[in-house]
Amino acid sequence: MKPKMTYCVALKLNAGLVFASDSRTNAGVDQIASFKKMRTFVKEGDRSLVILSSGNLSITQSAVNLMEQRGRHPELENIWNAESMFDVATLLGECMREVRERDGTFLIQSNVDIGANFILGGQILGEPPRLFLIYAEGNFIEATEATPFFQIGETKYGKPIIDRVIHAETSLMEAIKCVLVSFDSTMRSNISVGMPIDLACYTADSLCLDRQYNITQGDAYFANISQRWSEGLRGVFASLPDPEWGCPISKPLFPS
Amino acid sequence: MKPKMTYCVALKLNAGLVFASDSRTNAGVDQIASFKKMRTFVKEGDRSLVILSSGNLSITQSAVNLMEQRGRHPELENIWNAESMFDVATLLGECMREVRERDGTFLIQSNVDIGANFILGGQILGEPPRLFLIYAEGNFIEATEATPFFQIGETKYGKPIIDRVIHAETSLMEAIKCVLVSFDSTMRSNISVGMPIDLACYTADSLCLDRQYNITQGDAYFANISQRWSEGLRGVFASLPDPEWGCPISKPLFPS
Repeated sequence: MKPKMTYCVALKLNAGLVFASDSRTNAGVDQIASFKKMRTFVKEGDRSLVILSSGNLSITQSAVNLMEQRGRHPELENIWNAESMFDVATLLGECMREVRERDGTFLIQSNVDIGANFILGGQILGEPPRLFLIYAEGNFIEATEATPFFQIGETKYGKPIIDRVIHAETSLMEAIKCVLVSFDSTMRSNISVGMPIDLACYTADSLCLDRQYNITQGDAYFANISQRWSEGLRGVFASLPDPEWGCPISKPLFPS
Repeated sequence: MKPKMTYCVALKLNAGLVFASDSRTNAGVDQIASFKKMRTFVKEGDRSLVILSSGNLSITQSAVNLMEQRGRHPELENIWNAESMFDVATLLGECMREVRERDGTFLIQSNVDIGANFILGGQILGEPPRLFLIYAEGNFIEATEATPFFQIGETKYGKPIIDRVIHAETSLMEAIKCVLVSFDSTMRSNISVGMPIDLACYTADSLCLDRQYNITQGDAYFANISQRWSEGLRGVFASLPDPEWGCPISKPLFPS
């Protein structure tokens, strides 16, 4: 199984959207580098979009660059004039397909994994905030109330806390904390997911994106959260009661 | 990616060994059944062994059955007369290879996944307790003090709590609780891992296995642990401080 070198998560709440991505890219043990996996597209008062990416970096970068470049041509349908988030998701899927068509055959010949995913979220004037997950094949799904978040990359370690804490009514502040705990769990278990963390917080109906943070190695708040979470978990664990099962074999469970 | 339908974990502590496995087997959405994934081999005063299995059920069952059947032939080196746990791991790896050789080609022709893993742990008179992970190819590794546990199957959701809590000095009672919390996290995130849980606890140098438990759906202690853990996590989360970062963009983080 291919190791996963990225962790991105986005939450859709009544209060808005929260996005976070790590910055570690690894093309083999001797090539570890840091690349931003978050791109933002903002036209204040009209639209505010965030794209997170995981998987093959050349494919995701090329697809987003294609999307960005088309945005300079107002005669085309593009990210700046698309009527809806649904249409932007379609455009991004098309860019992904175009890059795969251009590069895919050559990469597969060299046995390079062409897997790539996007999370696309934001709001366009006239719509509520929306959140999409775009697959490597260019098709996509939208987050609903029952599943108010998407993760891509190394998703499993950081999922339990989101499952337990996040629902539509969660505040943006709680959501940011939850995302950081989720990153803490992921980075603790997978060293190829690494700092810095890019974090963006979108307030519903603001149509701007004024809260972006870059959390670097040694960030005091992150370290504080991480330590308190760790100590808190140990405390809860220590408080769990001992079992009192009868012993099905013949001897008491823990003979004194 | 193939979904994982099993979760097994074994811990090696100074006090002994703890083993646990779920019982859900799934050969497609319309074929869900319950099979024991734990087998025990005990000759009191001489040896006490536990095998956990994940992956292709026909392969793991056949390999363990082969191992068990060979144990009836004292003229062969077998699980009852092997000199060391290392030798037993070698024998089990050989059984796995034999079954793969017999069945592998046919399964691959039908595109059936032949992945299969074992955890083997226990003690043979004259040695300390030992713990091995046996791969689908029949090779294996042994747990060391730095990594005092092995997991197979759906391992990620339940790993963070083990990482945080388990070390060589952990008591058997704490280890049992940790394993149950680990199962709780896994079953909450992957519905194909299911009750009942088989649990076995081996006290170092006892050379018997008198503590085996079958934790079924609705078990009061497990439900209690699960609820307290969930409430405790929420409590710790609620107590985390809010961020106080300066805002790199221009506006305060959360304007009041």
